[in-house]
Amino acid sequence: MTRLENARRGIITEEMEECARLESVSPETIREGVASGRIVITRNTQRQHARPLGIGLGLSTKTNANIGTSQDHCDPKEEWEKMEVALAAGADTIMDLSTGGDIDGIRRDILARCPVPVGTVPIYQAAVEAADKKGKPLVEMSTEDIFEGIQRHVEDGVDFITVHCGITRDSLQRLQEHPRIMGMVSRGGSFTAAWMKHQGKENPLFEHFDRLLEIARSRDVTLSLGDGLRPGAVADATDRGQIQELIQLGELTQRAWKAGVQVMIEGPGHVPLNQIWTNIQIQKQLCHQAPFYVLGPLVTDIAPGYDHITSAIGGAIAAWAGADYLCYVTPSEHLGLPTVQEVREGVIAAKIAAHAADIAKGVPGALERDMEMSRKRAALDWEGQFAAALDPEHARSIRNERRPQENDVCTMCGRYCAIKTIRETYL
Amino acid sequence: MTRLENARRGIITEEMEECARLESVSPETIREGVASGRIVITRNTQRQHARPLGIGLGLSTKTNANIGTSQDHCDPKEEWEKMEVALAAGADTIMDLSTGGDIDGIRRDILARCPVPVGTVPIYQAAVEAADKKGKPLVEMSTEDIFEGIQRHVEDGVDFITVHCGITRDSLQRLQEHPRIMGMVSRGGSFTAAWMKHQGKENPLFEHFDRLLEIARSRDVTLSLGDGLRPGAVADATDRGQIQELIQLGELTQRAWKAGVQVMIEGPGHVPLNQIWTNIQIQKQLCHQAPFYVLGPLVTDIAPGYDHITSAIGGAIAAWAGADYLCYVTPSEHLGLPTVQEVREGVIAAKIAAHAADIAKGVPGALERDMEMSRKRAALDWEGQFAAALDPEHARSIRNERRPQENDVCTMCGRYCAIKTIRETYL
Repeated sequence: MTRLENARRGIITEEMEECARLESVSPETIREGVASGRIVITRNTQRQHARPLGIGLGLSTKTNANIGTSQDHCDPKEEWEKMEVALAAGADTIMDLSTGGDIDGIRRDILARCPVPVGTVPIYQAAVEAADKKGKPLVEMSTEDIFEGIQRHVEDGVDFITVHCGITRDSLQRLQEHPRIMGMVSRGGSFTAAWMKHQGKENPLFEHFDRLLEIARSRDVTLSLGDGLRPGAVADATDRGQIQELIQLGELTQRAWKAGVQVMIEGPGHVPLNQIWTNIQIQKQLCHQAPFYVLGPLVTDIAPGYDHITSAIGGAIAAWAGADYLCYVTPSEHLGLPTVQEVREGVIAAKIAAHAADIAKGVPGALERDMEMSRKRAALDWEGQFAAALDPEHARSIRNERRPQENDVCTMCGRYCAIKTIRETYL
Repeated sequence: MTRLENARRGIITEEMEECARLESVSPETIREGVASGRIVITRNTQRQHARPLGIGLGLSTKTNANIGTSQDHCDPKEEWEKMEVALAAGADTIMDLSTGGDIDGIRRDILARCPVPVGTVPIYQAAVEAADKKGKPLVEMSTEDIFEGIQRHVEDGVDFITVHCGITRDSLQRLQEHPRIMGMVSRGGSFTAAWMKHQGKENPLFEHFDRLLEIARSRDVTLSLGDGLRPGAVADATDRGQIQELIQLGELTQRAWKAGVQVMIEGPGHVPLNQIWTNIQIQKQLCHQAPFYVLGPLVTDIAPGYDHITSAIGGAIAAWAGADYLCYVTPSEHLGLPTVQEVREGVIAAKIAAHAADIAKGVPGALERDMEMSRKRAALDWEGQFAAALDPEHARSIRNERRPQENDVCTMCGRYCAIKTIRETYL
């Protein structure tokens, strides 16, 4: 039985208990959430050494860091370092998006040692191998190549996989009828669309969705239904193609649930501030409250080099509105593969967005962290402030670079510190 | 006649025309906005060489950068460099908050050369001079010291001044009845409260508000009514003290308007995501739609070192909800006086927030900038993307550090670029 089936039968598994402990909620809350599909627990049955992670309604907002080689920049050691840095900065999951070098080896290494859930996008490897190993364009990969790749990832122990099942003749037709500035910006989505066009066939992950469900079921892997039509420009947001895909993802969600397979839905993308609430609500509605995993949303297109910030703005609002899981965006988004330092900055920005939303959503324990920090700040207790900070080292280094004359204040106001003025005169 | 009086009489001044040109709105829109108090034009009559700036309803969201020496870090050349960097990054105004060294000299230098509006908080200097020059604690400065300081700033040409008129016996009583974690974090507010407590008197800027109006009127200077009770912790937000002060600022706004003096209202502070809309709406309502100038809001307390990001999240939502003017926050907020590089990062983060909100508010021309960027992105036109970027140099440097094998893509996806895949197969 899968955990979804267990939950439906009223069984609280050890995994559910562990998730409940980590979230300070009752095991029954987790069981109910899993049973209804509103919470997923991401862990491949092969990876008992990894932490099971609950994602969904009523739980703290989770963050993901993407790592992985590309053909233009392939240094597995550097990707390994990115993983370590991302985990240290608080990433809840890691996605390995490698497309360069020994892709199988890199993934297996990560799965063996990563203590948190690991996700992949299997079609990347299938496409790259079709092109590189078999010497044919990715559009000529076979349906078997695609499913064989998925099977391999699942058997290796991947905890959740992104599958672009909603790129279909229907949704592509909507896209073509209502053109965008940026067209399609999802890599997996573009591979799928190109393949369909070249082969003149329906998307095999849609057509043979039951086969996909069987594979996922075999290791209780969570399907992350990819948003191949996510907007890549704020002017393209919330259009027919995007919503058409979402309708289909909602249908597939129910089919997956019926088969005992857990599902998350991936979401946009580039979305203007004033459309974010709508996007979250339409996803939750059309996909029957399945957890929502958003990439961004980026609230403007004009800030390459700072897209961790544009994404933190959108992610905070999205999570407040109900998104459950934020994929980080690094400062190098749209420009190149991130460096180790950029990975760190991306994770921190996503954690800020997630935490700000958790305060707004009333997630247990969230506001208390801020109150603890503010009590230390009010006491001019600097060590206490560092200990309460999201990134203690960084905060400490900024303060230490510029020491005040009086030890209890900082160089911003010096002895004219408002807190000190009030303490000295009022208390 | 002040510009408020001119506007009321139906007169469109040259300044109004210039503001209208800069904003792509009609001069009549500006005149109406100024007449109703919903728009302010900030320029001291002495500073005809500075750009007049419209701030308020229907106009693009403006950003401010604070610079200025402190007693612990006093290097006027560095502050000068910060001003240059802030202007280059797109700050619309500069506030000189100097409290160290030759404060008059620093301010006069800035006023002589700064092409955009300059604001100050005169009570800082009055307090520092009382303490340093006259050898008495700041709480012993006289009412004359305070007004003389304000007069000096206005005569020197300052375009707008922050005055903490809402720190009154009434609002302080509310604060004491309903204690906070962080108490008072406004520097000017803390000086005023300490002074009142020590002297046993009402706030002179409240008690003698008409005298303040006369001074402001003499050079058509805009009053920025400070929020001495802004919350300094998310748990302290939107409490009785804060709203009591706002009620009083609304009353003072009407008195200022009656005297022909323009007014903005300053706002919080640290505010959880889900209270930002409410904060903006209550300000607009209680202060009769006067422009709102917010410091943040910071949506969490736990991210010292990254408060440009916590502030960009809050600022974007605030501006979308109707705030007109965002004060930047730098990464060193709560830790020390910012470096030149941190000033730059702070301005960029505030510009991102302001622009994201302008898209959401439908400010003319805002979305068009994003569409221009996205068209270049869709064309894989890298020079075009840099030209359309908020910070072209930074974007260029990230891309140039890691060159792809194929010139038209980037190292994130290399030849598996989604845009390229679609172009090659679909177009």
